[in-house]
Amino acid sequence: MVESRGSRGIAIGETGVADEAFLADWSALSGFGAVAGTNGVERQAASVADGEQRSWFAALLEARGFTVVRDRIGNQFGLLELSPGAPYVIAGSHLDSQPTAGRFDGAYGVLAAAHACFRVAEELRATGRAPRLNLAVANWFNEEGSRFKPSMMGSSVFTGKLQLEVALATTDPRGVSVREALAGLGELGEEDAFGPGTGREAASYAEIHVQQGRSMEEDGVTIGLVHATWAAHKFGFRVTGEQAHSGSALMADRRDALLGAARLVVAARELADEFETGALHTACGELNVYPNSPVVVASEVELLLDLRSPSREVIELAREKLMAVVDRVRAEDRVGIEITAEHAWDQNPYPEAGVALAQRVADDLGLAHGRVMTVAGHDSTNMKDLVPTVMLFVPSVNGVSHNLDEYTRDEDLLAGLRHLTAVVRSLADGALAG
Amino acid sequence: MVESRGSRGIAIGETGVADEAFLADWSALSGFGAVAGTNGVERQAASVADGEQRSWFAALLEARGFTVVRDRIGNQFGLLELSPGAPYVIAGSHLDSQPTAGRFDGAYGVLAAAHACFRVAEELRATGRAPRLNLAVANWFNEEGSRFKPSMMGSSVFTGKLQLEVALATTDPRGVSVREALAGLGELGEEDAFGPGTGREAASYAEIHVQQGRSMEEDGVTIGLVHATWAAHKFGFRVTGEQAHSGSALMADRRDALLGAARLVVAARELADEFETGALHTACGELNVYPNSPVVVASEVELLLDLRSPSREVIELAREKLMAVVDRVRAEDRVGIEITAEHAWDQNPYPEAGVALAQRVADDLGLAHGRVMTVAGHDSTNMKDLVPTVMLFVPSVNGVSHNLDEYTRDEDLLAGLRHLTAVVRSLADGALAG
Repeated sequence: MVESRGSRGIAIGETGVADEAFLADWSALSGFGAVAGTNGVERQAASVADGEQRSWFAALLEARGFTVVRDRIGNQFGLLELSPGAPYVIAGSHLDSQPTAGRFDGAYGVLAAAHACFRVAEELRATGRAPRLNLAVANWFNEEGSRFKPSMMGSSVFTGKLQLEVALATTDPRGVSVREALAGLGELGEEDAFGPGTGREAASYAEIHVQQGRSMEEDGVTIGLVHATWAAHKFGFRVTGEQAHSGSALMADRRDALLGAARLVVAARELADEFETGALHTACGELNVYPNSPVVVASEVELLLDLRSPSREVIELAREKLMAVVDRVRAEDRVGIEITAEHAWDQNPYPEAGVALAQRVADDLGLAHGRVMTVAGHDSTNMKDLVPTVMLFVPSVNGVSHNLDEYTRDEDLLAGLRHLTAVVRSLADGALAG
Repeated sequence: MVESRGSRGIAIGETGVADEAFLADWSALSGFGAVAGTNGVERQAASVADGEQRSWFAALLEARGFTVVRDRIGNQFGLLELSPGAPYVIAGSHLDSQPTAGRFDGAYGVLAAAHACFRVAEELRATGRAPRLNLAVANWFNEEGSRFKPSMMGSSVFTGKLQLEVALATTDPRGVSVREALAGLGELGEEDAFGPGTGREAASYAEIHVQQGRSMEEDGVTIGLVHATWAAHKFGFRVTGEQAHSGSALMADRRDALLGAARLVVAARELADEFETGALHTACGELNVYPNSPVVVASEVELLLDLRSPSREVIELAREKLMAVVDRVRAEDRVGIEITAEHAWDQNPYPEAGVALAQRVADDLGLAHGRVMTVAGHDSTNMKDLVPTVMLFVPSVNGVSHNLDEYTRDEDLLAGLRHLTAVVRSLADGALAG
C-alpha cells in the first residue's frame, strides 16, 4: 500500500487515503447518540449510546490488530504490543459527552489517538522495525461527570487519585451505580490494564482536544501547545431554609432556601465583573431544589459554584468576596449555608519537555502553533502526574463547547491528527522517556 | 346510646365518647406516610401512602354505614342516603399532602367532615327523622398539585373547570400519568358520583381547614369565617440561554439561563418589600435547570412564580414591576424569557349567606370567631361556584403550614368538629338550599 515515503516518515501517497479513513470513521462515530435535527450528540457515561460507541470503537481497534481490554473502572484500551515487555505510549481522551453536547470534545481526541496509533503501527510494520515502546489507545471512562460525579473518573482511578470502590459505588440521580451501569453494558473489566501484576506499564501519554474557547481561532493558531491549566476553586453549597406555605406564610417569617441560592448565583456573576475582563470566570451550572413544589417555600437547595482564573491571587480575592456574600445572605435571609464540598488548585503546569516536543513537531510539520492554557481539566491533567505528557488543542469555531453546535473544521481535525501522529511516533521512539 | 340531649341538639353524654372516637381515628390517620422521627407525613396524590390512607378511610366510612364510591378522577365519596332521591350536603377536603408536610392541612378537614356526618347521621337515626338532604363525605383527589399539576385537580374536574381527560393524562416528573397512578391503586372509578345520570345531586358544601397563617392564633379566634380568597397572579416562566462550557466560555459570551432565573427569584422577593408589610406575598417554590451539569452553562430553566395580595391593584402594580425586571434581564443577560402559563384571579368572595350561617353557629356554640381571608385556594374555591358553600378555619400554631412541624391543638380540632357538625346539621335541614 505504501507508494513512497517523505523525509519525515509520512507516507505521502497514503496520507490522503488515511485522512479519508479518519473522516469516514469520524462520521460513523458522530452518529452514536446523535440528537435528531442537530449536529450534536448525547452519550453520557455508561448510557446506551455510550455502550454502542464503545462496542463500535472496540471493533475498530480489533480490526486494526489491537487487543481491547477494559479495566475495573471501565477505561477502554486498545493495545498493540510490538516490543514484548516494553512499556506503552498511551494516547487517548474520552468518548462520553455532556447532555445535548457537541460531537467533537473528547471524541475527537479518542479517534485521533486511534488513527495516530494506526498510522505509526503501519509505518513500523512497513519497516519491520520494533519501537522502544508499545502503543495503547485509551478511551477514559466518564470524563464529563454529568451523570456520575466526579468528572475525570476513569483517569482519576487509573492514576490512583480516586479509590476504585468509591468510584464504582457512585450513583446517578436515579440511583444507578457506576458498577451497575458499566456491568449492564458488559463494559466492566475484572482486572487492571496497567500497573503491578499486569505486565504492562505506562511510559508516556499524549492527548489532543478541541479548544474550549476561541483564542486560537482569533490568533490563527492551528496547534495549541497546552502548557498549564487555570487555577480553580470549586464549591458545593447546601442552602437550608424552612418549608412553609409559599402563599400564606408572612414574608418576614420565611426562610427561603431558593432565595438564598439565587442570591449566590447572582453574586457569582457579579463577582466576575469586579475583575478585569477574562481574569475571573464564575459559574453555577447545577442547582437542585427541595421539595420543588409550586406552593412550598424551599427548605433545601444544593448548588455547585466554580471560580476559575489563571491567577491564584484572583481566585483567593474572589473567594473572600464570595464568603462575604455568603455571610450576608445567611444573616439577611436567615438561611443556613454550608459548604459540602470544596476543591481548589493552583495554576497547574504541564511538563515543559512535552510542550517543547509538541513545538518541535509543529515546526517540523509547518503548522501554526502557540502556547495556550486550558481552563478545564482533561484526562491529561491526571496522566501528567504519572508519566511525561503532551497536551494539544485544535481550534473550535467561535469557541463553542458543551453545545450541540460545537464545530471544528475538517482541515483542523486532520492537522491535529498529523501532529498527534508525529508526537506518538516520537514517544514510541523513546522521546520524553528519559 | 343517647343519654340526654342539650338545648342545641348535641348529645351531651355522647360528646366525650364521640370526641375520643375522632381523636383515635385522627391518630390512626396520621400514621399513614408518617415521616420517621418527625410529626409530619408524606403522602402525595396517588402515592402508596395515599392509597393506604384511602383504603383505611373507605373502611371507616363503610363501618359507619356509608357507601363508598370513587369517581373517574379518583375523588372518594362516602354516601349516606337517608331521604331517597334528595340532593346531598357534601362535606370534605383532601387527604393528599405536599412532600414532607404536616399531618393536619386537608386531612383534618376530611376526617372532621366524616365525623360531622357520623354525628348528624346518628342524631337522625336516634330521632328516626329523615333530613331534607342526604349526607356525603368527600376526599378530593390531588388538592396539593405537588406531584401532578394543577392543584385542586379532583374538585376542578368535579365542578367542570378542568377536563377529565386532560387531568387523567397529566404526568408526574417520572412520566407516570394520573390515570396509571390511580388505576394502580384501584382508586380509579368508572362513573361519575354526582350529576346527570347518577341519580345524585350536590346541594351544598362545607369544608374546614387549618389556617395557613397565624392571624387567628394572634387574635384569639377559634373559628375562622372564611369570606374571601386573596387575589393572585401566577406565572410559569421559561428562561432560555445557550449551553456553553461553564469554565472556558468568556463571561461576555454567555447566555446563562440559570443566572436569568436567579435574577427573577431575587426580584420577586424584593418586590414584596416595595409594598406595605403583608400587602404582597411573592414566591418561587419550583425551579428546574437543564442540562443541570456542573460544567455546563444552563440553556433552559423553568420556574413558577406567584404574586398574591388581598388587592388586585397591588398585584397589577407588582406585575408591571416584575415585567420591567423581565425586560431588563432579557436585555442585560441576553436570555429569552417566555411566559409559559399565567393564571390570575381577583379577590374571590365566598357567599355571604354561608359566612352568616357559620357565624350564627359559632355564636350558638359560644366559640370565638372572626372573619378571615384565605391566601391559598381550597377545594371549596371550586365548590362555591357550584353550590352554596361554607368555609371554616381552625387555628394553626405559629401558622406553620406545608411543614413537618405543622400543629393544631386537640381542643381546636374538636371545636372545629363541633362547629362543622352544626353546619352540616343545618345544611341537611335545608339551610342555604334556597
